[in-house]
Amino acid sequence: MDPKLIDGLRAIVGPAGLLADDVRRKPYESDALAYLKRIPELVVLPRDTRQCAAVMELCARHRVPVVARGAGTGLSGGATPVEGGIVLGLARMRDVLAIDPERRIARVQAGVVNSDLSIATAKHGLFYAPDPSSQKACTLGGNVAENSGGPHCFRHGSTTRHVEGLVIVTARGDVLDLSRPRADPLGLDLVGLFVGSEGLFGIATELTLRLLPIPPVTETLLAIYTSLEAACQAVTQVIAEGLEPSALEIIDKLTIEAVEASVLAAGYPQDAEAVLLVEVEGSEAEVASQTRALEPILRAFGAFELRRARDEAERARLWAGRKGAFGAMGRIAPDLYVIDAVVPRTKLAALVRATTAICRERRLKLANVFHAGDGNLHPNISYDRRDQDELARVIDAGHAILRTCIEHGGALSGEHGIGLEKLEAMEWLFTQDDLAAMCRVKEAWDPEGRMNPGKLIPVHTCMETRSALPSGGRA
Amino acid sequence: MDPKLIDGLRAIVGPAGLLADDVRRKPYESDALAYLKRIPELVVLPRDTRQCAAVMELCARHRVPVVARGAGTGLSGGATPVEGGIVLGLARMRDVLAIDPERRIARVQAGVVNSDLSIATAKHGLFYAPDPSSQKACTLGGNVAENSGGPHCFRHGSTTRHVEGLVIVTARGDVLDLSRPRADPLGLDLVGLFVGSEGLFGIATELTLRLLPIPPVTETLLAIYTSLEAACQAVTQVIAEGLEPSALEIIDKLTIEAVEASVLAAGYPQDAEAVLLVEVEGSEAEVASQTRALEPILRAFGAFELRRARDEAERARLWAGRKGAFGAMGRIAPDLYVIDAVVPRTKLAALVRATTAICRERRLKLANVFHAGDGNLHPNISYDRRDQDELARVIDAGHAILRTCIEHGGALSGEHGIGLEKLEAMEWLFTQDDLAAMCRVKEAWDPEGRMNPGKLIPVHTCMETRSALPSGGRA
Repeated sequence: MDPKLIDGLRAIVGPAGLLADDVRRKPYESDALAYLKRIPELVVLPRDTRQCAAVMELCARHRVPVVARGAGTGLSGGATPVEGGIVLGLARMRDVLAIDPERRIARVQAGVVNSDLSIATAKHGLFYAPDPSSQKACTLGGNVAENSGGPHCFRHGSTTRHVEGLVIVTARGDVLDLSRPRADPLGLDLVGLFVGSEGLFGIATELTLRLLPIPPVTETLLAIYTSLEAACQAVTQVIAEGLEPSALEIIDKLTIEAVEASVLAAGYPQDAEAVLLVEVEGSEAEVASQTRALEPILRAFGAFELRRARDEAERARLWAGRKGAFGAMGRIAPDLYVIDAVVPRTKLAALVRATTAICRERRLKLANVFHAGDGNLHPNISYDRRDQDELARVIDAGHAILRTCIEHGGALSGEHGIGLEKLEAMEWLFTQDDLAAMCRVKEAWDPEGRMNPGKLIPVHTCMETRSALPSGGRA
Repeated sequence: MDPKLIDGLRAIVGPAGLLADDVRRKPYESDALAYLKRIPELVVLPRDTRQCAAVMELCARHRVPVVARGAGTGLSGGATPVEGGIVLGLARMRDVLAIDPERRIARVQAGVVNSDLSIATAKHGLFYAPDPSSQKACTLGGNVAENSGGPHCFRHGSTTRHVEGLVIVTARGDVLDLSRPRADPLGLDLVGLFVGSEGLFGIATELTLRLLPIPPVTETLLAIYTSLEAACQAVTQVIAEGLEPSALEIIDKLTIEAVEASVLAAGYPQDAEAVLLVEVEGSEAEVASQTRALEPILRAFGAFELRRARDEAERARLWAGRKGAFGAMGRIAPDLYVIDAVVPRTKLAALVRATTAICRERRLKLANVFHAGDGNLHPNISYDRRDQDELARVIDAGHAILRTCIEHGGALSGEHGIGLEKLEAMEWLFTQDDLAAMCRVKEAWDPEGRMNPGKLIPVHTCMETRSALPSGGRA
């Protein structure tokens, strides 16, 4: 790396904001998709938008690739610098800049941790709805890049619904201040386009996010089943009847065992094949009415026990099990591959059956935790990455599960993004024309392809687009 | 126009699909923004995606501009062919292609009339939520182009939230089949980008739309006020208390008079300065609980009377007044300028005050009908376009109202789009860098600028972008 570039960057972010030696760069070699790694040439940690813009301008001048990184909790390799270059970490940009309780918005720096925002706004009776399992670590900027979901996104929608404005530093170092007013539209929805663009367009440095009033009453129910499919069918029926719980989460036997064996001890019954966690929010009357309507449906599909959290402590404990499930699986094997699979909600049971068969055939340990309400499964395969043969079977199973989703009219990702992990699969779902349209939009933001290269859009598609479509002008 | 092009188009759509003579082209000279007109050189009415693609390919070869048109009910001039060329009308593409009640989606051709979809899906207990005032005439394709709203979008969100997939014919005549799965994301949200792009990217020919279950109980309340500001304050308070009615609409005195003098006779009290129409949906218990919570708030701000629709007939009548308000204003003057203004919901009363003053200073007749819940005002100015001086004052008032919205932290449009009407105002709200980002995204879809030219993005911005930003590569 050009020493002039290194000196220039140090002048912008100060010595503490520049990680150049091997030991300090090493933690930035991957995100939570642990089987693909590359150590970045340099890590830069700016403090604000102004520093970000200066960094980006300098990198543009030196034609160096830039990969943005929040907390590195991503599951699709989005923050892994596979093609080298600089990692621009947002960990030092952790200020909540303003909270406007009247308009119910907050302006934050991109490095603010997800759950810190709800903690900061609680005194105004407000919270930030999207709640990924990693919410105590992941950053709001990373959530924007991946359009993250979470259990409560069943009712409230994923990150994109909660972003009102973005300050964006472009690949060239320009600063854009884009907003999307409350009533949604106003011409081109560049904010919506940016959310979920996985770092391919530029860096969002400041976010204006929407807050929701904390519901007066929250009821958490746990329905216990002797079969995973029965739990899936109950979810399909709850939705078919038009009920609107705020979350519908399923946890299977292997996960229950791991959670109960861990320090979490959520109190999930160990004789169950699956538990369904249902949460209902609203006024006292609304919650009572929804709960009354839910109970017979949950029982009709064979729930042999139905528990209600009696107080806030029990409620927190039931959720701790769900949110800590991925961590608890560390008891099963050293590595965990969390697959992100989506099908129409009516196909849940079919996908569970197929996933079980795929993993059994490949002699893999499968646990399931999932946002059943969204049709978003997380088959979790426990493995040991030092065992090359097992790793190959894990990756093969992941591909087979994705192909099954596509066959069932599903998609490649519910909330983890495409990143590196599913790059190849983009061509299974999209036509060359579709991918070419994506390439052209990408190139509108980053014509040199320096922003997070090697992610989301298969690169050879862009190259082929460029040569094959002369009438596409600049494409 | 090149006779070869005309012959080619006739061969694609048949003689009945081609309008070439003056009399038949005339109705296509504008949409509902009546003060700007231009007769298109030719009108083409394809029947399906295949014909659309062939038309677009031929137009690309002849380098002719193309303006898509639904029913021509748009209010920002989006379908007016200001720079000449061909109008591609979707009026003959009216088939509901498929309804999947289990997945709650419908696939339709772009020319299907908005309310026809809910009529077709009612037998499955489902409806399509976005409900513009023009819903009995406007097309779903037009709704996608403008990201249309409607009274019930307060709760359910504007068109973009209800679009799951789009078949798009590009400027070159390629066909893309893009989808956005239920759980929102999956990389670049090209569907979301297309919704609201006002015909600048290509033509959506087939739409996959989300349906919602018809709520078991709907309650409609009418609160009657002696001041418009009091009605606005009641709305702000309803939202502040976290209540979630499905619609919150305000109608002012002049509108009430026009409605009551018309055949609609909605039964609005003529001694009121404003009425607030509130609708609550859900189970019986939920509706009862919401209504109980609403009543004291509505009265606290001085509602001197509170009515409840006793039956479906009365409910329909209350809504008929709201939905027919624009038509009823034909009694006041020959022309109506429906302004689309957005401010944060807490600034409603301030905007109403400012709007009243702006129109009084310019001796203009102002009536107000608005989606109060969204902070989306529709100041309606009645005028006679033959009176050039009055027309000039109307346009000037529109500009002054928009500038006031911007000063209050609002936006240029809540649901009608930018089109021709607000092109100039884009530069009041956005920086040159912001507009340049929009230009680059536009050019990714339509490098020759042939799709609906002269709309949404000020053209000279694009030209300046092109010369000023060499490092933007293709920009």
